[in-house]
Amino acid sequence: MNINDVLALVKNERDAVEKELIANLDSDVKMVNEVASYVFESGGKRLRPVFLILSALMSGYSGPRSAALSGVVEYIHTATLLHDDVIDGALYRRGKESANRVFGNDITVLCGDFLYSRAFMNLVKDGDSRIQMLLAVAARTMSEGEVFQLIKTADVKISFDDYIRIIISKTAVMFSACCEIGAILGGQPAEKQTAMKNFGTTLGIAFQMADDILDYLGDPEKTGKKPGTDLNEGKITLPVIKLMEAATPQENKRIRDIIVDEKATDENLNYILGLMNRYDVKKRSEAVVDEYISEAKKNLEMFEPSQYRDALDFLADYMVAREK
Amino acid sequence: MNINDVLALVKNERDAVEKELIANLDSDVKMVNEVASYVFESGGKRLRPVFLILSALMSGYSGPRSAALSGVVEYIHTATLLHDDVIDGALYRRGKESANRVFGNDITVLCGDFLYSRAFMNLVKDGDSRIQMLLAVAARTMSEGEVFQLIKTADVKISFDDYIRIIISKTAVMFSACCEIGAILGGQPAEKQTAMKNFGTTLGIAFQMADDILDYLGDPEKTGKKPGTDLNEGKITLPVIKLMEAATPQENKRIRDIIVDEKATDENLNYILGLMNRYDVKKRSEAVVDEYISEAKKNLEMFEPSQYRDALDFLADYMVAREK
Repeated sequence: MNINDVLALVKNERDAVEKELIANLDSDVKMVNEVASYVFESGGKRLRPVFLILSALMSGYSGPRSAALSGVVEYIHTATLLHDDVIDGALYRRGKESANRVFGNDITVLCGDFLYSRAFMNLVKDGDSRIQMLLAVAARTMSEGEVFQLIKTADVKISFDDYIRIIISKTAVMFSACCEIGAILGGQPAEKQTAMKNFGTTLGIAFQMADDILDYLGDPEKTGKKPGTDLNEGKITLPVIKLMEAATPQENKRIRDIIVDEKATDENLNYILGLMNRYDVKKRSEAVVDEYISEAKKNLEMFEPSQYRDALDFLADYMVAREK
Repeated sequence: MNINDVLALVKNERDAVEKELIANLDSDVKMVNEVASYVFESGGKRLRPVFLILSALMSGYSGPRSAALSGVVEYIHTATLLHDDVIDGALYRRGKESANRVFGNDITVLCGDFLYSRAFMNLVKDGDSRIQMLLAVAARTMSEGEVFQLIKTADVKISFDDYIRIIISKTAVMFSACCEIGAILGGQPAEKQTAMKNFGTTLGIAFQMADDILDYLGDPEKTGKKPGTDLNEGKITLPVIKLMEAATPQENKRIRDIIVDEKATDENLNYILGLMNRYDVKKRSEAVVDEYISEAKKNLEMFEPSQYRDALDFLADYMVAREK
């Protein structure tokens, strides 16, 4: 099985999601539709919808609600991206100029709000109070997680548990909701719903960790980004945590100084990248990702073998192995 | 009947709303609770809750849902205030330093998102899909209205209809939802629900107009604001529209130049205030407000006389007559 096989398996549903994303941009205020279209037409991998749809198919559901709910998930996800880009003053998103840069911070914040409320309108229309609550809680948790991350900026005493808490909130909660929704749509019993919830959580953690590794240790030619953006923003992520575990007290003192003073000069960054290389931080970090991925995949064993189960199993590896 | 009589009539419910506002600030991330408490403890008139509660009481409902739903309304309203203050770079709100100034734009945007999603969680808990849809649509309309207002900034060709469209979206829609929800809670028939919806809409329009009049023509000692903030922000509101109706072509040319160039110097502002005085713009504008208020109050005639109906009738006048 390769990625094209997986995508072929959900082709109809993915097409339906794209239609859903555009169909609801029905604002009387044309600018709102323009901003939202700008964001959706720049693509994005629609990973969350693919997990929701495959979880639903594996659970025995193949109706229209998985595309409708995927649209809701993608609206909420996009609203958080728009607000995050305003907060971070981001210049690019998905290889295009960011919406805040093209349309301004004010309109971008408001279009995020539009997408939130449009998402909830569609959730009300879908009518399942359990799913409504799942996604409202996910949205709440994501905003809390971003606040927690801001508070922990440049906090060198951040624990591994704090880091996990941040990435569960900002990323894993939504993957978890998607996979659980799939099991709910398929009418699976409680223990299988929980298995899919756990699948999504551990998978989401691994996904964010892989992203955080790439930020320092990815190939700039493939990521299209200068390494160490997170260091620049004072975000302490897995590679730094793993580095500090391995480095000498003296080295740690300098690492802490660099982070606390937020002096992400080229010299400082090169020092940290040099240490990461010396201590093989990439390997150490990837070992943690691998643990989470194999933990995630265990949850699939509760389900009967099927091409959908195989696809989820494949995707779990693919989403962290893939070079961006 | 005076304002204290009205407030005494809904004392228990108002106390319940205050409890509701604080009780749901249960985030594990303390900073989120801190920002939200900061905003709620600065008071605010809780006008929307009072209209919701009185509409419910007049419609025959006196249970706990009116306070719970008032909490939802106030969360959504506050989320929009937080985001607006970030967008406008506001320095003050309700006589205190604005949240964006105290906590920063980033945290303020995210706490707005937290309040939105917390509101939707409580809406899901309430479980009435009609009310859920009403408030999701209101939230959507408010974000659209703000975008429309931004697009129309310094657009001197704005029509009275455009202006009405903006203030319906940003203000009246939520008052409308509150009054309609009251009638729904009381199990009133469709035509009375519609009457309350219309009551809220026309009332909300009048309320925003009165606010817009005060911006130019209020007593600075009472409003605590320098007159003409809206001019400074390029917002064309009722007093300017009424002025341009009355002024000579030559005067209008200069007014347009001032607005288009966004030169709200003291000299320009004084020129405009002088013209407003000469053409009695306050009286002309207040006449429009009075029309909307008397239009609003007609909707109450459909209901049996009661102290709650009297209170709504009183409040309609009070909210536009009151000096701030």
